[in-house]
Amino acid sequence: MTIHAPSRETFEARLRQIGDARYHDKHPFHQLLHSGGCTPDQVRAWVINRYYYQTRIPMKDAAFMSRVTDPNLRRIWRSRIEDHDGTEPGTGGIARWLKLAEGVGLDPDYVASEVGILPATRFAVDAYVRFVRDEPLLPAVASSLTELFAPKIHSERIAGLFEHYDFANAETMSYFQNRLKEAPKDVAFGLKWVLDHAVTQADQDAAARALTFKTEVLWAQLDALYSAYVEPGRIPPGGWQPGEGLL
Amino acid sequence: MTIHAPSRETFEARLRQIGDARYHDKHPFHQLLHSGGCTPDQVRAWVINRYYYQTRIPMKDAAFMSRVTDPNLRRIWRSRIEDHDGTEPGTGGIARWLKLAEGVGLDPDYVASEVGILPATRFAVDAYVRFVRDEPLLPAVASSLTELFAPKIHSERIAGLFEHYDFANAETMSYFQNRLKEAPKDVAFGLKWVLDHAVTQADQDAAARALTFKTEVLWAQLDALYSAYVEPGRIPPGGWQPGEGLL
Repeated sequence: MTIHAPSRETFEARLRQIGDARYHDKHPFHQLLHSGGCTPDQVRAWVINRYYYQTRIPMKDAAFMSRVTDPNLRRIWRSRIEDHDGTEPGTGGIARWLKLAEGVGLDPDYVASEVGILPATRFAVDAYVRFVRDEPLLPAVASSLTELFAPKIHSERIAGLFEHYDFANAETMSYFQNRLKEAPKDVAFGLKWVLDHAVTQADQDAAARALTFKTEVLWAQLDALYSAYVEPGRIPPGGWQPGEGLL
Repeated sequence: MTIHAPSRETFEARLRQIGDARYHDKHPFHQLLHSGGCTPDQVRAWVINRYYYQTRIPMKDAAFMSRVTDPNLRRIWRSRIEDHDGTEPGTGGIARWLKLAEGVGLDPDYVASEVGILPATRFAVDAYVRFVRDEPLLPAVASSLTELFAPKIHSERIAGLFEHYDFANAETMSYFQNRLKEAPKDVAFGLKWVLDHAVTQADQDAAARALTFKTEVLWAQLDALYSAYVEPGRIPPGGWQPGEGLL
């Protein structure tokens, strides 16, 4: 019997195993999307709903920064907000996402209005923002570590969309191309921070729970999309109706 | 009898009148400081306690951004955090404040440790962060408008400190010199935003209350300093004791 927490390597492996088991690249919606099996309207529904997640990420990061007393940690974290909000109008990840929206035939003003977002998308995403605002810093950082698994899904997505869909071009795919550069930098910092700060078994458990929670936030969004627009295809009241918001 | 809110001009005059009546440039501690009447230890006590306020400003701004859904508003607001936290280690307003700390003979690591901050300083500053996190966006922005009155106090402070204290030089005064450039840009945006958004009498009242609250946050910090280190000069348990934290 030992009173020591598992080693850094064992703990990192535990975190990575959560991604192997639960990251949303395993979700059938993504398999449909990446293999070219989505209809144009299913792609549009994904773009509309995922926009809500994109816009809340910098709010989540600001909520985190609002609780950080160390100017150095805040400064490093701030680059995440810059990546999404950009440095001037029309730049940054959210603007790039709206280029994708245009590419799939949606009016970017409609998408930006957040009309038609599935309620289940809002509930899941808002739960993530609240989690980062309310939980201790260690689980807050740990919840960002799904980015460990993001480069693989972005690479698959870029390849799959280019292969199967006419809308894929350098401009519409620029969001994902940029994330390939941004996410590894963020997650290298976040992973080291979590490994450094999770010094007890209870810390490691809390971090693992936070990462698990985050995989649930991502998965729930795809479940909602699938239910509304694939199978059974029952769009809930308030959800986007095909034909709305087109260019 | 009219159901219209007072005009934009009348409302702005109401906000400015709050500064005329209640801004902390009227506090006897500042008059003592700017006239050269502070002892070195009183200056140090001010530097130590004001540091806490400086560090919480970017947390307050991040709390605000965490509630803003408009990427454009977030991007504009983000520059406030950059001004305080800088773009790399050793830059930004907080680092400049630590240069002032060194200049008055304090160990910057001691000041950054936040040991010795008066509890009343914490209570007032923490109330401000909570206010911005919890209140609607209009009062949250309005509470920042004490910056309308800041250039005057910064100018008086720079002149007064240069005239009366040996520690005043380009490096130790750089915090205030930079604020002379930064604050007018921030407050021009904030004032326009508040004037644009306070469209009803109730809005104007809420904004005026928020600005009044903020003047109270600033004033309470100087009352605590005065009580602990000037008159009666009774340092509460936990407060900085002269001699501690020196270089």
